[in-house]
Amino acid sequence: MRVTATLPLLSALICCSLTEKLPNVSSPNIIIMLMDDMGWGDLGVFGQPSKETPNLDAMAAQGMLLPNFYTANPLCSPSRAALLTGRLPVRNGFYTTSAHARNAYTPQEIVGGISKDEILLPKMLKEKGYVSKIVGKWHLGHRPKYLPLKNGFDEWFGAPNCHFGPYNSSIRPNIPVYNNSEMLGRYYEEFKINRKTGESNLTQIYLMEGLDFILRQTKALRPFFLYWAPDATHAPVYASKRFLGKSQRGRYGDAVMELDYSVGQILSWLRSLGIENNTFVFFTSDNGAALMSGPKEGGSNGPFLCGKETTFEGGMREPAIAWWPGHIKEGTVNFQLANVMDLFTTSLALAGISPPVDRTLDGLDLTPVLLNGSYELQNRPIFYYRGNELMAVRLGQYKAHYWTWSNSWEELQNGIDFCPGQEVPGVTTHEQKEHTQQPIIFHLGRDPGEKFPISVLTKEYQHVLSMISPVVEQHKKTLVPGMPQLNMCDLAVMNWAPAGCEKLGKCLKGPKSAPWKCDWPH
Amino acid sequence: MRVTATLPLLSALICCSLTEKLPNVSSPNIIIMLMDDMGWGDLGVFGQPSKETPNLDAMAAQGMLLPNFYTANPLCSPSRAALLTGRLPVRNGFYTTSAHARNAYTPQEIVGGISKDEILLPKMLKEKGYVSKIVGKWHLGHRPKYLPLKNGFDEWFGAPNCHFGPYNSSIRPNIPVYNNSEMLGRYYEEFKINRKTGESNLTQIYLMEGLDFILRQTKALRPFFLYWAPDATHAPVYASKRFLGKSQRGRYGDAVMELDYSVGQILSWLRSLGIENNTFVFFTSDNGAALMSGPKEGGSNGPFLCGKETTFEGGMREPAIAWWPGHIKEGTVNFQLANVMDLFTTSLALAGISPPVDRTLDGLDLTPVLLNGSYELQNRPIFYYRGNELMAVRLGQYKAHYWTWSNSWEELQNGIDFCPGQEVPGVTTHEQKEHTQQPIIFHLGRDPGEKFPISVLTKEYQHVLSMISPVVEQHKKTLVPGMPQLNMCDLAVMNWAPAGCEKLGKCLKGPKSAPWKCDWPH
Repeated sequence: MRVTATLPLLSALICCSLTEKLPNVSSPNIIIMLMDDMGWGDLGVFGQPSKETPNLDAMAAQGMLLPNFYTANPLCSPSRAALLTGRLPVRNGFYTTSAHARNAYTPQEIVGGISKDEILLPKMLKEKGYVSKIVGKWHLGHRPKYLPLKNGFDEWFGAPNCHFGPYNSSIRPNIPVYNNSEMLGRYYEEFKINRKTGESNLTQIYLMEGLDFILRQTKALRPFFLYWAPDATHAPVYASKRFLGKSQRGRYGDAVMELDYSVGQILSWLRSLGIENNTFVFFTSDNGAALMSGPKEGGSNGPFLCGKETTFEGGMREPAIAWWPGHIKEGTVNFQLANVMDLFTTSLALAGISPPVDRTLDGLDLTPVLLNGSYELQNRPIFYYRGNELMAVRLGQYKAHYWTWSNSWEELQNGIDFCPGQEVPGVTTHEQKEHTQQPIIFHLGRDPGEKFPISVLTKEYQHVLSMISPVVEQHKKTLVPGMPQLNMCDLAVMNWAPAGCEKLGKCLKGPKSAPWKCDWPH
Repeated sequence: MRVTATLPLLSALICCSLTEKLPNVSSPNIIIMLMDDMGWGDLGVFGQPSKETPNLDAMAAQGMLLPNFYTANPLCSPSRAALLTGRLPVRNGFYTTSAHARNAYTPQEIVGGISKDEILLPKMLKEKGYVSKIVGKWHLGHRPKYLPLKNGFDEWFGAPNCHFGPYNSSIRPNIPVYNNSEMLGRYYEEFKINRKTGESNLTQIYLMEGLDFILRQTKALRPFFLYWAPDATHAPVYASKRFLGKSQRGRYGDAVMELDYSVGQILSWLRSLGIENNTFVFFTSDNGAALMSGPKEGGSNGPFLCGKETTFEGGMREPAIAWWPGHIKEGTVNFQLANVMDLFTTSLALAGISPPVDRTLDGLDLTPVLLNGSYELQNRPIFYYRGNELMAVRLGQYKAHYWTWSNSWEELQNGIDFCPGQEVPGVTTHEQKEHTQQPIIFHLGRDPGEKFPISVLTKEYQHVLSMISPVVEQHKKTLVPGMPQLNMCDLAVMNWAPAGCEKLGKCLKGPKSAPWKCDWPH
């Protein structure tokens, strides 16, 4: 698809309904829509005062809302790796041991990426003939062996890293945009993002890539998995011209509006093609809103504490909507504690594929919750990790913090603040504080904002601790950490000469390899 | 209605539908449901994670949601006086001049109350034959001349003050509960509130009083005004047995669930009686959630800053839903800036009555907004007062703080905190800070939580200031403050011997009059 393609083409696509000739495929199609840095509070249905997400709100009204849905890590790469492997980052290797409790990800100088020992969802889905495409941000490593088509995906349109930039090509290359296994161009070069105005048509391109993939697989009568991962709400946020300036919330809100519109287009497309009863769609985000980029480039975590990079609710509670007309009861709300790793196991269950038995999976099969509205997995814990440290655990309505940290005093003094305007004494600490002997416990039903620790002198505290402690002990005792993949950095591994650069005359020359231990300050 | 009446009676009432014999009354009935200390974030539709308000969420889906609706003051009495007079407290006298910028209300030692010079909504509505009832909390003064039946209401079931207590009758009497102009008993005596368990059936009684009134007026073919003001969400919060322990949020959530249920019952009742197309219903709250009572006795203000007692958004932005099947388009959201004083003017407009011309009214007629969905009043300002001081002004998306104050350092040290877990430097100040020369300005669309002041060095700041300054100047220049009613206190004026106490043998003897200047610490 050409970069210059715009909405008229989209309309042309939508006109050609295939409704009449559609088969009833046995394995349902699966679409996972993963937003970037979008917060729980960014959706109208989750209380955004601007109420500018009519399509997502309608999706919730037609499907199931999951207010207790979590990511596996408060940062993008580990969260995405967890979703696609069904395993905690500390197991799949998407963490660092360079320093204690550090958030690590895959900037373009990262040496590592997704381990060859991990099995990704698209690879598993092949067993039942699924064709898989990722549209948008990958973030599981950008060196050749780590790319999507080497890890189970059949198609890819998007970029391996964040759309940071623009960069001077001599010091640091701009991030490439791939079409399958070859680059098509680079951000800020062929794929424009105007840093001043915020204008970019990338979301429209990602939308069209998604619609086109759905159309092709539907025509070919093949079950498909679409992993739709646009990144417009990650700073620097962007929107296309027709959405710029339209939101009450400024540029960030414009980006949300365009994503909301795009979700609506995809759902309409499924209906137009007559495959809505055969397509499971799940909408969520990779981590909490980036409050340190607020207010112009950061979203909202609603009533929750802090945001991205932290293990408070604002960092890890995610907006979540499941949609499957005729299968998921419309307009339901389910309070099941669930997380992105469940999407791995649930997708396999939907496809009728047995999960791998040679490894520990952290995801559960949510189909009883989604299809029967049951609430039978209610005693499952949620683990909040920061790098190699289990920071907190939620069990039922209770959350116990074993370690607290927002960000360091040094960074705070430099203007980086993960909890702007928020300060809970002894909780949003600016040094790493250990509470393993006496965890800080909150009741998230009464106190979703984590403002009022339960007194250690109460019976309630002692009771909760006696419930959570064995869960934590069991988890720690049986945990076998994976080989950490995010320890080393090297300028030589950056996107100097991605596959396909020769044809485009866009190969750059990088420096000699000089690896160093990456610096993970958070 | 007897205190012991419970749900079976309610069911009996509901069984007897009058649908067949109903006329089409020309002036619509008006129901204003005013909650007590309920926050914007307490409703599912406004993002409460527990999503336990199905009836209110349905009311919004059937009506219009107003996310930019405000009270006139962050405290109960002035807010209620403003609603019923259509005038700012600084005009109608519901404020104090005892100290600068102090929140004042009507505890039972207050000497003052609503001035005889004010005209209340029920009195105005008599012009078109409306019968008016207040159910629940009055709070406009408890001395005989200030009571509801002396100020335009035809009926009253409820109490003049908050349900604080229990009190030792020799030092301080318990608050009386009135049926019309005579007391029926007292809180904690005939009207039980169990402080330990939180059990009380008061909301059920208030519900039945409302249903009974609606039924009687409907039978009599008289247009009615029901001011339904239950107080279960004001600390000490309470709920009846069937709701206790049912919420994910603890006792506060139980109270919300019972109020939500009751709202649903009232709307169903209107439908059962066939008068839903002739009854305008508005749901809102008197001020923001009481965060200082959290988490067990206080609600949620969602993403907004601080709560009750403050002029930040958490103190004054209110949940608001307008409902009138066949007249208000269902499922709409309108961003009009509006407030409780508009309910006065709007009610008169609905009834076809001209507002009084001998006084300044602060309320606007919202019927174009409600009935046509227009947004034509968009340049109207919102004024945030604390006592005698204009603390802040909102115009469009911008809010300028001229004074900031949360509460004093002394009180904070005693554990009273109006902004628990929140701390915006220079904004949530613990001393009264004047910013009249250089107001602190926020963009509430981008930054509803008031966390990121706009830099005074920007063009945006200067532009906004040039828009807001003349509005403030005009307001201040033309403002004629009313005589302050909340300056003096006296133990002799407490509820020692309310009307009707003789019949019940419940008259108490109070002390001799010894008035003093009330202490308003906030």
